[in-house]
Amino acid sequence: MFSKTILDFGRKPNVIRDLSAYAGARKAEIGPENVFDFSIGSPNVPPPPQVHEAMLELLTHADPVAIHSYTPAPGLLSLRRAIAASICRRFGAHVDETGIYVTAGASGAIAMALKGLTNPGDEVVIFTPHYMEYLIYTEAYGAVPVIVKTDPDTFQIDVPAFEAALTEKTRVVILNSPNNPSGVIYTAQRIRALTDAMKAAEKRFGHPIYLLSDEPYRELAYDGVEVPYLMDYYDDTLVCYSYSKTLSIPGERMGYLAVCRRCAAYEDVVDVCAGAARALGHICTSNLYQRVIERCVDVVADVDYYKRNRDVLVKGLEDLGFTCVHPDGAFYLFMKSPWPDSMAFCEKAKAYELMVVPGHDFGVPEYLRVSYCVDHDTILRALPAFARLAEDIGLA
Amino acid sequence: MFSKTILDFGRKPNVIRDLSAYAGARKAEIGPENVFDFSIGSPNVPPPPQVHEAMLELLTHADPVAIHSYTPAPGLLSLRRAIAASICRRFGAHVDETGIYVTAGASGAIAMALKGLTNPGDEVVIFTPHYMEYLIYTEAYGAVPVIVKTDPDTFQIDVPAFEAALTEKTRVVILNSPNNPSGVIYTAQRIRALTDAMKAAEKRFGHPIYLLSDEPYRELAYDGVEVPYLMDYYDDTLVCYSYSKTLSIPGERMGYLAVCRRCAAYEDVVDVCAGAARALGHICTSNLYQRVIERCVDVVADVDYYKRNRDVLVKGLEDLGFTCVHPDGAFYLFMKSPWPDSMAFCEKAKAYELMVVPGHDFGVPEYLRVSYCVDHDTILRALPAFARLAEDIGLA
Repeated sequence: MFSKTILDFGRKPNVIRDLSAYAGARKAEIGPENVFDFSIGSPNVPPPPQVHEAMLELLTHADPVAIHSYTPAPGLLSLRRAIAASICRRFGAHVDETGIYVTAGASGAIAMALKGLTNPGDEVVIFTPHYMEYLIYTEAYGAVPVIVKTDPDTFQIDVPAFEAALTEKTRVVILNSPNNPSGVIYTAQRIRALTDAMKAAEKRFGHPIYLLSDEPYRELAYDGVEVPYLMDYYDDTLVCYSYSKTLSIPGERMGYLAVCRRCAAYEDVVDVCAGAARALGHICTSNLYQRVIERCVDVVADVDYYKRNRDVLVKGLEDLGFTCVHPDGAFYLFMKSPWPDSMAFCEKAKAYELMVVPGHDFGVPEYLRVSYCVDHDTILRALPAFARLAEDIGLA
Repeated sequence: MFSKTILDFGRKPNVIRDLSAYAGARKAEIGPENVFDFSIGSPNVPPPPQVHEAMLELLTHADPVAIHSYTPAPGLLSLRRAIAASICRRFGAHVDETGIYVTAGASGAIAMALKGLTNPGDEVVIFTPHYMEYLIYTEAYGAVPVIVKTDPDTFQIDVPAFEAALTEKTRVVILNSPNNPSGVIYTAQRIRALTDAMKAAEKRFGHPIYLLSDEPYRELAYDGVEVPYLMDYYDDTLVCYSYSKTLSIPGERMGYLAVCRRCAAYEDVVDVCAGAARALGHICTSNLYQRVIERCVDVVADVDYYKRNRDVLVKGLEDLGFTCVHPDGAFYLFMKSPWPDSMAFCEKAKAYELMVVPGHDFGVPEYLRVSYCVDHDTILRALPAFARLAEDIGLA
């Protein structure tokens, strides 16, 4: 009676949520200090003070009707201008406000861009490891996901594999850097090679191929490693941004889609994405939070906290004999599963009250994800549990 | 290159927004006191004090990480329980928390329900006058809108016309009462006849037909007129609710979908709607506002303000010779256009600085909508302008 695809979307077990729920139950049973929940990628540092300051100021001094009324569907003009100005200031004159559409997080932006840019049968290139929802959106709108593996061990873009995947039907390529779940930042050199290949393919096939840059972790880069801005490399780029991690407000659903001003068929792209947002039931995002973002457009949460977590966790796990992908950004550690099937290993880890996520849903079943957006103390207390686990499985 | 349908969604001029923008420009030119903007259906009364009180309390005393983190996709369990309890308390034991899904306003709920419940080619019955976006969602997901006219003059459900429109392909029927734009509340008698016809059609065709009750204006009913609760009449009912008008927070995008516990294929309906929400890019709604709603679940904004506006406006316009549909609810007055084409009349009204909305987009081109969610003073100052307009066009 109902679409099997859509039913499955509603029924598919959410491994991460289930693990997190299990962790919650265990905490109630044996005390929160004895459970090490590395499952969920939700910021644990509070929003920077400017966020609540802006909210309190608006709630106490602004017109209570104006701050809660509908905004234009793409967002308040003043916010769109502030976002465009911030991008231009930081990365170059790539956008203006006509190409900024305020969305419910980066996911809202990805959904509308995929719905708008693809026709049924079009191909969308996705690199492993990948955010699960790319597949959901692609399939929901009738497009076809083409999964391309990255380099083993480094998880950098495998350019020859990418070139081989490009066909006449390729319409969109999604890049996510810093990457969830690997923490890898794609190098400028690989991005240059990837975009060169895309330019050649555009010529060969005679139509634009759009690059979707999913970058909720842009500000979470460590040790001064640069996160290349894709519009610098390729004109047919759309950036999907989120304030979830930057401002530690993931549950408030604020982000934007930014279309490069030099993008092919610019007006059509802007209109079709707006039409897609409308088709997806988007009326506008929170008026109050739009005003907050406008006041905090260049503010960033305490990234050093995550860096300290990363440093201690990576060293601790490597000392125990685990093999990790060195994370330059985001708040995830991608670890090679000591057993071929990470699902079995993650199940085993639960016996030590360690909740880590098997790589299956990210398309890399032999790895697992450890989210280090947790209290630093949790990491310190978890390392002995990892040590007992390592000993149990006979790790060198 | 792009879907013409989706491009058109993005390009279609928004008559209401355009009128409102025009009103803004005129206000800047000739002073706000000389412009009478009846275009937009956005509450002009502030949120009840409990809303800001709850926000301030949460912002100053709650854990700043917890109040902004991701919530489960369907919403915080405590909120879903509070909503279910409120429905059961007010209308009977129709729902529990498993059937409550917190959405971005009623539009979010309608979009997910239509995406989930329909397959391409299924028919969706929509009564005139209707909210424009019903057509957008229906067409975007490949279903077919079947427009059924209501009774002339009263805009009550025309049951024989409805029965004639039911086919083997009918999957969903949308009702919106109190109605935007007519302000009409469908009578219990007509609803009984409509749901009887639906039950007969379900038997005849051998599959469920779902009733989607779009009720953002439920609390805006005047003179004690009762708004029938459709789950009382029909088990295969889903309610799409919004806090936009109830709490005067339209820009914050909070509402819910409620599935009747006795609904056919209950678990499937719940799962397919959740899957649809996921496909539409929904991750969750604002965590903070979920907590606010939980604290304000039975609070309602100042409805008497709208009633006073209605009384003065209806009497004033009828005294001038205009023909109005008597609005029992919502904050809209539906007026017969003195000229056959309401578009031309609304254009004429602009010469008197009166911004009113032609009925074309609502499917009733010979009527026009006057939104009376405005300062009472605006109505008092507008009536002389309506009088000059009436005189100009030679109204009795």
